[in-house]
Amino acid sequence: MKNLKKAALSAHKKYKGKLNVVSKVPLKTVKDMSLFYTPGVAEPCKEIAKKKELAYEYTSKGHTIAVVTDGSAVLGLGNIGTLAGLPVMEGKAALFKEFGNVDAVPICLDTQDTEEIIEAVKLIAPSFGGINLEDISAPRCFEVEERLIKELDIPVFHDDQHGTAIVCLAGLINALKVVKKKKDKVRTVISGAGAAGMAIAKLLMKYGLKDIILVDSRGSIYDKRQGLNDIKKKMAKLTNRKKIKGGLKEVLDGADIFIGVSQPNVATKEMIASMNDGAIVFAMSNPDPEIRPKDAKAGGAAVIATGRSDYPNQINNVLVFPGIFKGALEARASKITDKMKIAAAEALAKLVKTPTANKVIPGVFHKGVAEAVAKAVKKFA
Amino acid sequence: MKNLKKAALSAHKKYKGKLNVVSKVPLKTVKDMSLFYTPGVAEPCKEIAKKKELAYEYTSKGHTIAVVTDGSAVLGLGNIGTLAGLPVMEGKAALFKEFGNVDAVPICLDTQDTEEIIEAVKLIAPSFGGINLEDISAPRCFEVEERLIKELDIPVFHDDQHGTAIVCLAGLINALKVVKKKKDKVRTVISGAGAAGMAIAKLLMKYGLKDIILVDSRGSIYDKRQGLNDIKKKMAKLTNRKKIKGGLKEVLDGADIFIGVSQPNVATKEMIASMNDGAIVFAMSNPDPEIRPKDAKAGGAAVIATGRSDYPNQINNVLVFPGIFKGALEARASKITDKMKIAAAEALAKLVKTPTANKVIPGVFHKGVAEAVAKAVKKFA
Repeated sequence: MKNLKKAALSAHKKYKGKLNVVSKVPLKTVKDMSLFYTPGVAEPCKEIAKKKELAYEYTSKGHTIAVVTDGSAVLGLGNIGTLAGLPVMEGKAALFKEFGNVDAVPICLDTQDTEEIIEAVKLIAPSFGGINLEDISAPRCFEVEERLIKELDIPVFHDDQHGTAIVCLAGLINALKVVKKKKDKVRTVISGAGAAGMAIAKLLMKYGLKDIILVDSRGSIYDKRQGLNDIKKKMAKLTNRKKIKGGLKEVLDGADIFIGVSQPNVATKEMIASMNDGAIVFAMSNPDPEIRPKDAKAGGAAVIATGRSDYPNQINNVLVFPGIFKGALEARASKITDKMKIAAAEALAKLVKTPTANKVIPGVFHKGVAEAVAKAVKKFA
Repeated sequence: MKNLKKAALSAHKKYKGKLNVVSKVPLKTVKDMSLFYTPGVAEPCKEIAKKKELAYEYTSKGHTIAVVTDGSAVLGLGNIGTLAGLPVMEGKAALFKEFGNVDAVPICLDTQDTEEIIEAVKLIAPSFGGINLEDISAPRCFEVEERLIKELDIPVFHDDQHGTAIVCLAGLINALKVVKKKKDKVRTVISGAGAAGMAIAKLLMKYGLKDIILVDSRGSIYDKRQGLNDIKKKMAKLTNRKKIKGGLKEVLDGADIFIGVSQPNVATKEMIASMNDGAIVFAMSNPDPEIRPKDAKAGGAAVIATGRSDYPNQINNVLVFPGIFKGALEARASKITDKMKIAAAEALAKLVKTPTANKVIPGVFHKGVAEAVAKAVKKFA
């Protein structure tokens, strides 16, 4: 790990960032210049002035998105500031291009105020075909996303929420097959009630999982618990119908699925052992999971996934976000709906022909992932 | 021209815009991913969080600028709206890369309100090393630029003002050599008191031209003329000391230099004939100049320049803006000063070894232009 840290720093220094903005048109002759710059460029301008939609024909809008952050929740590093988030935004943009052929521009906003974030994104929206929100902390991220979805006519997607939820659902679809359980008969415990936890809970419910318990740093969330914020209050009405109280230890007893999007080492072998037979454990805190795979295994887990590339079953958003935007842009969708998200998860799950305990999700470099996800998204756009 | 229009439309359609955002780092293996994305990417993030300046080492900030418009003064098309300006912004960005190896991102702002433009640019500034303002109408552009220069720590440059002024000055430096006149002895008439006209007047004065008369649609600008806006009031005190009144016809009588940044066909052969011997005529309205070269010649002009590529002496901003930002970024300048602008003009002029009436400015594809301009800019940064 120490070597990796040094290598990462020197690689970033060597390349001076990860992105280039390049011309895809020839600009080598006077004729090229007169076609793509003055006077020729006036023609597409005039056409777009007459009919806005033609921007998708004559400009890069239709294949270009903004990757927007305020730097308030960067990786597991927390609120390190917007500029310090830029290496992640550039990495994300590079992955968008590499995996989905989507052109992505990092935008680090110099504000962490909800209204200013919304206003800034609305002001820069015209030149983009979509907005990927990134590393904005909860609960602010919920309002930012909700408002932008309502107020813009291009798709807005907070990847930390929905990318994570979709790839998690894809893995669960296959994990349930491995342990031969039905989606409407299982109890799921989600450790972490931030951006990812909330989105996972919502998407699993939409998909048909009925018994879900969210756990935050103060324990299980239930209706009428004191001091809940608005979004948690709302979720408290939809989850944990039996109002089970207590910490992870109490709620994992008799559960079928454990999903961790919280902190390293919050779960123990004993807690996993208290789950039902055929337990599914997705410990996705990164780089250190909620429980180490060998401890989860010792506790009797049947299927184990993490966020890491050095264990089987890596739950990695890169399996989802490039294809989601590729599909949404190609379909010129104005929104990314729950149907599109579930279709994406199902398409991703299907890429594993025969799911096994060690293979519930395709690897990051599995061929055709973005294409399969994009195709599913377009079908429901 | 009709063929060019059709060709320009179909070329824009074929390429679907002019830009791609590409990764310059390898992302082909698990190791690549762990260096440039999680977990390795956390390291440059942490370094930048400790020391902001390191963004220039570890990210693309140091070679990336935003090309920002509000669509209020696009080419000669006027206020066609921000999205309709996108083909021009993309063209500009493509030229930045092609000629200056500067990575440029088009940002079309969904507002034409001065305060909102300023606010939006400030909010998106962190991920950029510079801001090129583009096609924002006068007089709003003056306040937008002035405020942003003051409030941001990265260079802000309104190309329609200063790019035009610098390339114009470069051409004049050589034209004065051709007609053997001294900069402090000539009278200059500038037709057009918008963004370009104002900036040209200011830069020529800084360079040492003493007798300048600005002309707007209501005639010559002079101190105490009724109904002048703030910027014109200010310029009225610095120009036209003899308070010559009237239209172009009146003020061109006895002038040495005519600079047109206004409307097609506002000048006549007779007006040019009324200028002093060795008249210099830069008729830069595009695509149709203030006077056709053959009429200017018939009127006795000694040196004629236009904005067009099909006549000698094309006064084209592309000779300036890529090098200006290349130099400013390489020097990590926080501002682009008048000294840097004059140095850029002088360096550009010097590229023409032996100026003649038909060669006062290098051609657009002259080798090493951006490098020479950048070098001069860096020297004074």
